[in-house]
Amino acid sequence: MPSFVQILDFIGTFAFAISGIRLASAKQFDWFGAYIVGLATAIGGGTLRDLLLDATPVWMTDPIYLICTAFAMFFVIIFGRFLIHLNNTFFFFDSLGLALFTVVGFSKAISFGFPFWVAIIMGSITGAAGGVIRDVFINEIPLIFRKEIYAMACVAGGIVYWLCTKVDMEDYLAQLIAGTTVLVIRILAVKYQITLPILKRDDTL
Amino acid sequence: MPSFVQILDFIGTFAFAISGIRLASAKQFDWFGAYIVGLATAIGGGTLRDLLLDATPVWMTDPIYLICTAFAMFFVIIFGRFLIHLNNTFFFFDSLGLALFTVVGFSKAISFGFPFWVAIIMGSITGAAGGVIRDVFINEIPLIFRKEIYAMACVAGGIVYWLCTKVDMEDYLAQLIAGTTVLVIRILAVKYQITLPILKRDDTL
Amino acid sequence: MPSFVQILDFIGTFAFAISGIRLASAKQFDWFGAYIVGLATAIGGGTLRDLLLDATPVWMTDPIYLICTAFAMFFVIIFGRFLIHLNNTFFFFDSLGLALFTVVGFSKAISFGFPFWVAIIMGSITGAAGGVIRDVFINEIPLIFRKEIYAMACVAGGIVYWLCTKVDMEDYLAQLIAGTTVLVIRILAVKYQITLPILKRDDTL
Repeated sequence: MPSFVQILDFIGTFAFAISGIRLASAKQFDWFGAYIVGLATAIGGGTLRDLLLDATPVWMTDPIYLICTAFAMFFVIIFGRFLIHLNNTFFFFDSLGLALFTVVGFSKAISFGFPFWVAIIMGSITGAAGGVIRDVFINEIPLIFRKEIYAMACVAGGIVYWLCTKVDMEDYLAQLIAGTTVLVIRILAVKYQITLPILKRDDTL
Repeated sequence: MPSFVQILDFIGTFAFAISGIRLASAKQFDWFGAYIVGLATAIGGGTLRDLLLDATPVWMTDPIYLICTAFAMFFVIIFGRFLIHLNNTFFFFDSLGLALFTVVGFSKAISFGFPFWVAIIMGSITGAAGGVIRDVFINEIPLIFRKEIYAMACVAGGIVYWLCTKVDMEDYLAQLIAGTTVLVIRILAVKYQITLPILKRDDTL
Repeated sequence: MPSFVQILDFIGTFAFAISGIRLASAKQFDWFGAYIVGLATAIGGGTLRDLLLDATPVWMTDPIYLICTAFAMFFVIIFGRFLIHLNNTFFFFDSLGLALFTVVGFSKAISFGFPFWVAIIMGSITGAAGGVIRDVFINEIPLIFRKEIYAMACVAGGIVYWLCTKVDMEDYLAQLIAGTTVLVIRILAVKYQITLPILKRDDTL
């Protein structure tokens, strides 16, 4: 039976894959292309993290990520036109995935013996880099560089995780609080359209 | 004296490099840029595979790939205007390279102890990822995500390879059959313009 | 107290980060996006080199690169409108960074036991690949593929380094001469607008 974290991992992968597949379909990708973009969105962040940590990428040890992306693909093919009504649901699952991926990436970096600031970056990469790869594949400027609080929620969650471990909190509790931080910041940022300032255009280039 | 596989490898590298150099030249890249795009097309897939497998990228152990790309470069510079008459020839060599790279990638993953489904992906990455990197460099949406059967031929070849090993076939025979599968599917797909379905445009985004 | 090389490293990182942040700001990236593009410009080349060499990326062992990019960020935010008057200064520091990064990358590859031609490539990747990643992030065709002598200066510096070691020169002297080669070629190329030939447009594609 899958554990609670595995179920969350499956949900996050599914939501990330859906986001990649929908954006690919808006660009007229064929089924193969859409599947690959969905997969890259779901596993790209974790793969970059594992390359940097010199670990075997997680998806090469368990086919669940490929299967989960295939489910996401069928889901979009079958329910494509109804998905607009589910945007809020997807947003919630996507944020849940972001929270979980951040916590997983942070923990993994710590378990590899890296200091907390590397762990914060690894958590953020796990959560946000898949979306960057997705946007490179569909030939758009990465969304997270221009819009809304996204990766900053991961950074905040990582800092909270670190503070929790500083006060010797139990690991499961630290993970819960850090994940909730990511989730809440992300949801508040979208609900109240909180954005980071944009650098003034530098007309000198 | 080079072996038969080394000759095929050289031909595949040459054909892949030519494809990158020609696309770069259509975008007004300078000689250096065209060389790098050609090189990335030829070795990009194998490099990504080796990073994922935690192996030293093959081109770092033998300068033949750099030399072969240099030959491709001189070839395009000298015969550029006549290349249109050779499009069918290039297509054949490109398909041959695709078939060979797929088989090499599959075998390498198996020899590293990974299961068959990882090997199928590694075969496909070896064959197709170089073209994706090429298209990112020239700032186009990757061709293989939108047009024709390309990477799917690698996947099919990988599955055939796996089935051959399941029935305890000799390895050289399995490689021959798997490579031929890739080659035939790729050629038939282009000849009869067989494409994958395109995902319906999802106007909800 | 930081060594001379560390100071050069800091200057190079700062100049590279500035170039990324300014280009990102011209594309209306928010602060987070600009920081990431600046960071990727500064550490992207070294990271790719370390992944290929199977080493831990340098920025994961010392937070100086993150801090230095943060300084570059504040610098652009505060002095943004005056930066146009400093273009020549930035160009010099950027060239200095290119020279230093090339030498560092070459030395590291040699110390990992790779042959000289791999070291030349690793030097060039260290110097030039960050700019390619920057341009992919801002969705432009990489500048170094189309304009001016840039990566070729790294290649030349690497060859000079190799020749110096061939005649058993002291390492610090070889580094100085190789770095100066990169610096001089880069500055002369921009001053006299020396460019590589562009491949004739191949209208056959």
